[in-house]
Amino acid sequence: MLLNNTIYFTLFFLSFAKMLVSQSDVENKIKILFEQSLTDGKSYNWLDHLSNKIGGRLSGSLNSQRAIEWSKNELENLGLDKVYLQPVMVPKWIRGTFEYANIETSPGNTINVPVCALGGSISTPISGLRANVIEVKSFDELVKVKNEVEGKIVFFNKAMRADLVNTFQAYSEAVNQRVQGAEIAAKFGAVGVIVRSLNLKLDDQPHTGAMSYGTLPLSKRIPAASISTNGAELLSSMLSLNKNLKFYLKQNCKNLPEVKSYNVIGEIIGSTHPDEIMVVGAHLDSWDLGDGAHDDGAGVVQSMEVPRLLKKINYKPKRTLRIILFMNEENGKRGAIRYYEESKIKKENHVFAIESDAGGFTPRGFNIDSNEEKFLIIEKWSIYFKPYFINYFEKGESAGDISFLKNKNNVLVDFKPDSQRYFEYHHSENDIFSSINKRELELGAASMASMIYLVDYFKL
Amino acid sequence: MLLNNTIYFTLFFLSFAKMLVSQSDVENKIKILFEQSLTDGKSYNWLDHLSNKIGGRLSGSLNSQRAIEWSKNELENLGLDKVYLQPVMVPKWIRGTFEYANIETSPGNTINVPVCALGGSISTPISGLRANVIEVKSFDELVKVKNEVEGKIVFFNKAMRADLVNTFQAYSEAVNQRVQGAEIAAKFGAVGVIVRSLNLKLDDQPHTGAMSYGTLPLSKRIPAASISTNGAELLSSMLSLNKNLKFYLKQNCKNLPEVKSYNVIGEIIGSTHPDEIMVVGAHLDSWDLGDGAHDDGAGVVQSMEVPRLLKKINYKPKRTLRIILFMNEENGKRGAIRYYEESKIKKENHVFAIESDAGGFTPRGFNIDSNEEKFLIIEKWSIYFKPYFINYFEKGESAGDISFLKNKNNVLVDFKPDSQRYFEYHHSENDIFSSINKRELELGAASMASMIYLVDYFKL
Repeated sequence: MLLNNTIYFTLFFLSFAKMLVSQSDVENKIKILFEQSLTDGKSYNWLDHLSNKIGGRLSGSLNSQRAIEWSKNELENLGLDKVYLQPVMVPKWIRGTFEYANIETSPGNTINVPVCALGGSISTPISGLRANVIEVKSFDELVKVKNEVEGKIVFFNKAMRADLVNTFQAYSEAVNQRVQGAEIAAKFGAVGVIVRSLNLKLDDQPHTGAMSYGTLPLSKRIPAASISTNGAELLSSMLSLNKNLKFYLKQNCKNLPEVKSYNVIGEIIGSTHPDEIMVVGAHLDSWDLGDGAHDDGAGVVQSMEVPRLLKKINYKPKRTLRIILFMNEENGKRGAIRYYEESKIKKENHVFAIESDAGGFTPRGFNIDSNEEKFLIIEKWSIYFKPYFINYFEKGESAGDISFLKNKNNVLVDFKPDSQRYFEYHHSENDIFSSINKRELELGAASMASMIYLVDYFKL
Repeated sequence: MLLNNTIYFTLFFLSFAKMLVSQSDVENKIKILFEQSLTDGKSYNWLDHLSNKIGGRLSGSLNSQRAIEWSKNELENLGLDKVYLQPVMVPKWIRGTFEYANIETSPGNTINVPVCALGGSISTPISGLRANVIEVKSFDELVKVKNEVEGKIVFFNKAMRADLVNTFQAYSEAVNQRVQGAEIAAKFGAVGVIVRSLNLKLDDQPHTGAMSYGTLPLSKRIPAASISTNGAELLSSMLSLNKNLKFYLKQNCKNLPEVKSYNVIGEIIGSTHPDEIMVVGAHLDSWDLGDGAHDDGAGVVQSMEVPRLLKKINYKPKRTLRIILFMNEENGKRGAIRYYEESKIKKENHVFAIESDAGGFTPRGFNIDSNEEKFLIIEKWSIYFKPYFINYFEKGESAGDISFLKNKNNVLVDFKPDSQRYFEYHHSENDIFSSINKRELELGAASMASMIYLVDYFKL
């Protein structure tokens, strides 16, 4: 009995000691990942190049092609096992050479307001569009005044809610006016739409973004533009003084035939489970007004940093690590769809995917889309992130490029940086490299590398 | 028996229901505090005024006097029960009209480098100071080379550690070279000191800050200046090429006699426990290079926002709420000392104090300086902050103006915003209003108001 106790105790002690060693080894690896990213990282220099040497890279543009070639080359320089391009047809929309608007408060008196065409919009007539304006804050309101819409410009002026701490929720509550506004207004006879920029700050930058005409035939489509938040406030206040003012809009954007583009993919083949794939993803395309530093240049360079950091600490993944730089997230998600379809044909087994597409800000945590069992495992890893002040581990649906990969068994994770500043930059001229904080970007890269390390190490 | 069970059940249910109501009432109050701050807050406009209409406000300056009058007036406008000034003598140091430096790499060849005088430094001779340079990264290193110091400028070039996620720790590990560098170097015969700016970013802004000559007599004091991080890198690399290069420094800063200044204090008298005082504090003075928006304009307006928000939700504190805008935190802490001494004479009972002096960034949580029992109570309140992604509740020593109030029974709390960007701005020309994010600032004000509300509501 004594002997037995001793044996049990010894066994217990050994397994406990092993657990301790293993835990401290894991902690140490993560510590080194963060240190490396902060003191010898490449993400910031990479993003400098992508933002300043290449710039905005809308699907189908010359810049998008340059970004494809550059990122493929950089991934090759990392010495990955495979780097390749996956062809995909993408829409090609160009902004054109001018976009201009004014409010005509009385005949001959005009005030210029900052506007930009929404992505996918048709142009105005060459001489511009001049019409009365009807202001609404929702589709319900639009339906109520549908008899007054004919021949007018519909002005969608729903502001993002400032009281929500989760700014993405505020965005999701307001984004429909941008995406579907033109389609719905056109059905009621509107001749154009002006949409308040999805920006929590009052300023003079119009914010672009994708819009869709749905099933509207070409002949029924109407031009759609975004107006800066200050412009929207001004227009609304002018309308309250004079309902019959005219709004003038002129833009020569254009939809061209689809063109061939690519997802950029790099792989480290798993040492023991090569068929189990862990995806790290971001989107390579961006809007054209800024240089796409936050959306989603930050995600791109953080994703590229994951295999580089793991190599630096000499960690060889047991499963296959696949970095995917998706094309065309902004106006079609064609890259994500193409990747998903091809992986289905190949019957690939995606066990895990993480995406960074919420800006290069201080890391707060992870949104986890998985079954309960796996969520509880990941939630326990929060102890490893505590030293880096990263604590947000919540269940939620993934909505980005990786969401196509969802199935009953795998885990999709959205990396969550702080969201307070994001929508000041998002889709506007403000989204440029100088708005990136080096440390915040680097902490994000380390967070993603650490999550991949944990998934692989613990065979989630 | 059945009756008894029913009674017990009913009692249990009632107390449970009351608990629920009370908890949801607390949650609701905090929700409204955050909503009010984000949608109808005054902190951002106040800070605009303090930063842009007043500006940098070093102790004893005209601007500091304007800040005193303005903040007193604004507190009076809030309809507090008492607003008053507490006189305090403060040091008066002025930067003078020029500060200039260059590296003379060979006779006649000079490269200008950005420098600024450290606060409290004496001037150079009117024609400047020209000397060889000896570079060290610590006082230990300096001691090792002490025989070579005579007649030279000591260049303290310890960089803040980039690998530390807690940037305040990195600051505290490097700040001594700025504070004590001149005193120690002078003892070894140095003729001046140049200190690497305490900035995690490589850029061209020199960062000032307090320095002290300790007990050195006037005749032994040597000029001390800060050099930008880029300048420090350049100087270091030039020294590695040529140990005998000369450094030229010219500055005409000056210490003047002490002058009278004030702490600004506003109070809501407690409705049931007027003698129990809860302090909300920040420092009104700032360095002179920027406009002190983060350090500590943000803390000032967040503190002023606490009573305003509580009034807005019609919450009348049971204890006395005292807002203190301390004078002279930066170069003497005279305001804090004066406040403490007077409160000791009056035998005032400070049960709680919270301070905001770490920038106007996204709130992360609170550093709590208290006994274990009270810490555990506050830690449990973290559930109320979870909806706002605020999770940092850690024990630690308070180091700011409120730290003088420490005793066995009370609780001192440092409000902790995210620290990644802080030292890019801190004590430099970069610390200006345009580096403030409105939402981040407002979330901080709401965090502080919520903490005071909880302390008062639960009678901590």
